[in-house]
Amino acid sequence: MARSVVPLANLIEQFERLPGIGHKSAQKLAFYILSMTDTEAKKFADTIMMAHEKIHRCKTCCDLTDGEYCNICLDGQRDRSVICVVENSKDVIAIERTHEYTGLYHVLQGAISPMNGIGPDEITVKELLSRLSDDKIEEIIMATNPTVEGEATAMYISRLIKPMGIKVSRLAYGVPVGADLEYADEITLSRAIEGRQIL
Amino acid sequence: MARSVVPLANLIEQFERLPGIGHKSAQKLAFYILSMTDTEAKKFADTIMMAHEKIHRCKTCCDLTDGEYCNICLDGQRDRSVICVVENSKDVIAIERTHEYTGLYHVLQGAISPMNGIGPDEITVKELLSRLSDDKIEEIIMATNPTVEGEATAMYISRLIKPMGIKVSRLAYGVPVGADLEYADEITLSRAIEGRQIL
Repeated sequence: MARSVVPLANLIEQFERLPGIGHKSAQKLAFYILSMTDTEAKKFADTIMMAHEKIHRCKTCCDLTDGEYCNICLDGQRDRSVICVVENSKDVIAIERTHEYTGLYHVLQGAISPMNGIGPDEITVKELLSRLSDDKIEEIIMATNPTVEGEATAMYISRLIKPMGIKVSRLAYGVPVGADLEYADEITLSRAIEGRQIL
Repeated sequence: MARSVVPLANLIEQFERLPGIGHKSAQKLAFYILSMTDTEAKKFADTIMMAHEKIHRCKTCCDLTDGEYCNICLDGQRDRSVICVVENSKDVIAIERTHEYTGLYHVLQGAISPMNGIGPDEITVKELLSRLSDDKIEEIIMATNPTVEGEATAMYISRLIKPMGIKVSRLAYGVPVGADLEYADEITLSRAIEGRQIL
């Protein structure tokens, strides 16, 4: 088949725009879409539109939701004295998966990165600060990524919050569970030594 | 974010159905869709619907096309005395990419596989045979995959066509160009020896 079958070429091109999808995969996905029944294809297209129309930020924590507030903010069982600050919604999913944390979240929707023109105003720092004056928050856990940007963001926010008398903590650094020490990089390893715990 | 954000969970589920997309990738793709502008998301959904509505099989060669006949069948420059028989449209793209072949194609839309309940009637064998009586075909090149099913299909079709006095050939087996002999499997290697060419 010549690539000049326009609707197919368009579909391949659309898939190629997605992250992590190269030309070969885009082609495979496009052919898969063609192999679907009409109903299935319509459902696929509708789901995209529906998700795009219905999902927006929670008015409190800025996480994604299809309601006014997200399910975690609405959940009466959660501990309202702790806020875990993360960069994005995927981090909330990752932490929820541990079933260890019962507090609230705040989703920054990014990290401060002057190189990319992202300052404190481009992420939801203001929204976080306004929550601190409203609620009775005792601790803020900074769970931004262990990257230069994540670190900088954690430092920036903790400097704003500490003067308010609220405890600010940071996720522990260390060797990942199940990993081999031999393969840990020097920085992780030295952080693991620094943060060693008494047994 | 709880997975209970229904439109998002649906979108992730839709992506998970695609071949080669696991849960993690589906999640990444869904978030990417959400990060699109409304126009982009609409275009993505529309392209899926459009491709699905417009694309069907060429009346001659059964390849995918958005017209009545595909571009290759319509192309006056192609050699109409040779038909290359392939399993699916992706194989046509692969062969076209070589710029070596100027004949026509026939897309079987599958291979005979009794294990999966696919017999000669489930693929486009009948359509191929009807082309042989209509046109002045001199050679059929069997280019089905070098798998058990592809082999069986090639054998089955060649037995039907040979009695008509039409030459039937099969793609050469051998070591892939650029590969290391050391890593070639025994079957490929013995096929390469069998098919050796005089220099």
